[in-house]
Amino acid sequence: MMVYRRAVRFEEVDAARIVFFGRFFSYAHEAMEHFFSPIEGGYAGCILGRDVGFPAVKVEASYHSPLRYGDVVDIETSVTRLGGKSCVLRYRFVKVPGGSVCAEVFHTVVITRLSEMRSTEMPPDVRAHLEAHRSG
Amino acid sequence: MMVYRRAVRFEEVDAARIVFFGRFFSYAHEAMEHFFSPIEGGYAGCILGRDVGFPAVKVEASYHSPLRYGDVVDIETSVTRLGGKSCVLRYRFVKVPGGSVCAEVFHTVVITRLSEMRSTEMPPDVRAHLEAHRSG
Amino acid sequence: MMVYRRAVRFEEVDAARIVFFGRFFSYAHEAMEHFFSPIEGGYAGCILGRDVGFPAVKVEASYHSPLRYGDVVDIETSVTRLGGKSCVLRYRFVKVPGGSVCAEVFHTVVITRLSEMRSTEMPPDVRAHLEAHRSG
Amino acid sequence: MMVYRRAVRFEEVDAARIVFFGRFFSYAHEAMEHFFSPIEGGYAGCILGRDVGFPAVKVEASYHSPLRYGDVVDIETSVTRLGGKSCVLRYRFVKVPGGSVCAEVFHTVVITRLSEMRSTEMPPDVRAHLEAHRSG
Repeated sequence: MMVYRRAVRFEEVDAARIVFFGRFFSYAHEAMEHFFSPIEGGYAGCILGRDVGFPAVKVEASYHSPLRYGDVVDIETSVTRLGGKSCVLRYRFVKVPGGSVCAEVFHTVVITRLSEMRSTEMPPDVRAHLEAHRSG
Repeated sequence: MMVYRRAVRFEEVDAARIVFFGRFFSYAHEAMEHFFSPIEGGYAGCILGRDVGFPAVKVEASYHSPLRYGDVVDIETSVTRLGGKSCVLRYRFVKVPGGSVCAEVFHTVVITRLSEMRSTEMPPDVRAHLEAHRSG
Repeated sequence: MMVYRRAVRFEEVDAARIVFFGRFFSYAHEAMEHFFSPIEGGYAGCILGRDVGFPAVKVEASYHSPLRYGDVVDIETSVTRLGGKSCVLRYRFVKVPGGSVCAEVFHTVVITRLSEMRSTEMPPDVRAHLEAHRSG
Repeated sequence: MMVYRRAVRFEEVDAARIVFFGRFFSYAHEAMEHFFSPIEGGYAGCILGRDVGFPAVKVEASYHSPLRYGDVVDIETSVTRLGGKSCVLRYRFVKVPGGSVCAEVFHTVVITRLSEMRSTEMPPDVRAHLEAHRSG
């Protein structure tokens, strides 16, 4: 599990004054970019240098309590399923302070050769990193 | 079912050159705002004038084929479940032309008195509109 | 001058409950994409098919009155300066109804061969379209 | 001058594969929120707790070289003009590594009582902070 801390920013709330529900996927992806930072070249290096991407094929989110401007969350990223060419990442949004889980996102991605938009085997370093962060 | 047509815009793709997966929830919400337009005051009137909002408690999305800059989709909005204080909206993203379904989003919302962030009974006109657009 | 009508959407306001000042540039670019729609292939066709883009080198915006959720604006796009490889687009944000100007954006772009990120001569059809929409 | 370091994220580029020009204002505002962090309660505390906001009345940006996915910038925030009820913030976007200035934003804000959307005197702690970070 890796933790990415994030404050809600000024422009991220909606007209109901809470963080827009779709924004959680931006937060999740930020956490994912952070999660991949130990890999050589990081997430950007995969995309740009190695032609390896992680398009989503499925996502599920549950929202337990709203986030508002000024709130801070720890996004805990872990791997709940690891296949040959795909995996499921889980992001738990934990309020700081307090520790309540305000949302949870499951994100199924397929390892993809981006230039061909075709699934491909997971590179060994990517697999090792995912393996090291399995949960449950 | 109501249809909302939307072209992918210049700033809506990501570094993999496809529409960012989280962006589909912005598209879905746009379609939802359009879907509520026949209600008096529209979606904005609910939020601002009637203190009635529709926060998400759950979403699920499946992605079948990527959208790119220049693509156009018809987003078909319908209601797949209708409870006393909640409902599930479905958005099917259908490519124009061609008719292939590139993504599908299920969006569970709870009718909420926003000033108190508490669930509330569905106003009759909202219920009637949702009832009129049930699918399946 | 071409007009593009746009309603403020649910997720476009900030924690001060007004449209985020940077969002006006998204609106302006939407209006620009609309403005280029009469050109063959439209804006997307320039970018993707002709390798011709319009990166900004300078922008200026003045804000006269805030936009809020539920507001509608007409964005009036015209050309205030037309050079060999660059031009200035002006976007006036006019409230509907009422007709007050709530913001104005000036957008200097350089016609650019995107694959080389080098300025290039304006294609004749682009020039003709810009010429036809000069103001002042 | 205060420095805020920011990596370009996956979803922040446009169909021309560079950071969307309007996105620089989101970056600038992030830098502004960081800039105000030494003030009691920070920027969020001003907005939410003290009813004091900083709506833009004018912005100017110049773009010298594009930012791409994977790039990192230091955003240097300083104050170039300080009036009774308004000020001008400057943000210089400096590439890391290298040190080239890729963009510069000037941001004129008016100190505003948000509940009334009326200009107001600058609170002394805000003034002192701005004074301490004057440039030029």
